[in-house]
Amino acid sequence: LVIVYTGNGKGKTSAAFGNVFRALGHGMKVLVVQFLKGDWGYGDCGEQKSAVRHKNLQLVQCGRGFCGILGDNKPRKEHRLAAQHALDLAQKKISSGAYDLVVLDEIHCALSQRLLKSKQIVRLLKNKPDKTHVILTGRGAPAWLLRVADLVTEMKEIKHPFRRGITARRGIDY
Amino acid sequence: LVIVYTGNGKGKTSAAFGNVFRALGHGMKVLVVQFLKGDWGYGDCGEQKSAVRHKNLQLVQCGRGFCGILGDNKPRKEHRLAAQHALDLAQKKISSGAYDLVVLDEIHCALSQRLLKSKQIVRLLKNKPDKTHVILTGRGAPAWLLRVADLVTEMKEIKHPFRRGITARRGIDY
Repeated sequence: LVIVYTGNGKGKTSAAFGNVFRALGHGMKVLVVQFLKGDWGYGDCGEQKSAVRHKNLQLVQCGRGFCGILGDNKPRKEHRLAAQHALDLAQKKISSGAYDLVVLDEIHCALSQRLLKSKQIVRLLKNKPDKTHVILTGRGAPAWLLRVADLVTEMKEIKHPFRRGITARRGIDY
Repeated sequence: LVIVYTGNGKGKTSAAFGNVFRALGHGMKVLVVQFLKGDWGYGDCGEQKSAVRHKNLQLVQCGRGFCGILGDNKPRKEHRLAAQHALDLAQKKISSGAYDLVVLDEIHCALSQRLLKSKQIVRLLKNKPDKTHVILTGRGAPAWLLRVADLVTEMKEIKHPFRRGITARRGIDY
């Protein structure tokens, strides 16, 4: 299956990690590639701390943070190289046929910021082994991806605590 | 925080288990009470198989399956007793203050089928310790709950593989 979690609400990456949690329960082999999280103050990140305890889960944080927003002033090229590196790695691991589930976390952001090309993702999904489920998360999934996906859920923000001044909570947001 | 995942799309329980996965990474103590899943052919359930490996996670499946649908013909009373038992247990564990995160999975269904009373949930959320985050999942969260919740995401179905005749997949759906 090709699964897309998109929309402006909380729960996209969480839903992907819920699927990871289930898959690990079945003894499946899982790869998570994070396209945003990386050298960006995520040492205290719950999914990373949980991941190291699971031998069947490989979590790779390749990102350089948000590109051009939230105070970012790293050169665009650095973001592009990081995203391309993440995609190459995902491509290689998927082709190997060794994984039952691969999560491409926040890849839609990398796409909408044109750090990756659509045709790269099209090719990746087209050539993936049947047995490998792929989950793609992030705001603003492109229309072509919704067409090729088997399952699409839009996470819609109805209420968000940040709007009331509550900041990110350990164990919930990271 | 009080977090609500609702809507007709896939990913509500998954998002909750993603939060569980993060919380466990931080060494937090987690309880998941499932109001639907129970004696209903869920021996092969990924979250259960994953849960037994985490000493900080207690997963309790109290449900008797869907009430009155999907071929169910168990007496309504049996469903009500199961739901009340699940809620009592959740209430006791939450009051103990020992948990950082408690998930009440598919509780909205139990509410909409009137197996539980709204005021029971209101009381539970009102009296919970500040440190205990509570996540409530299921279709059709009632309006009063959206008002009291801190974070609400609607999981909206855009595309669902069951509509194309693809059945539930191991590691993804269960």
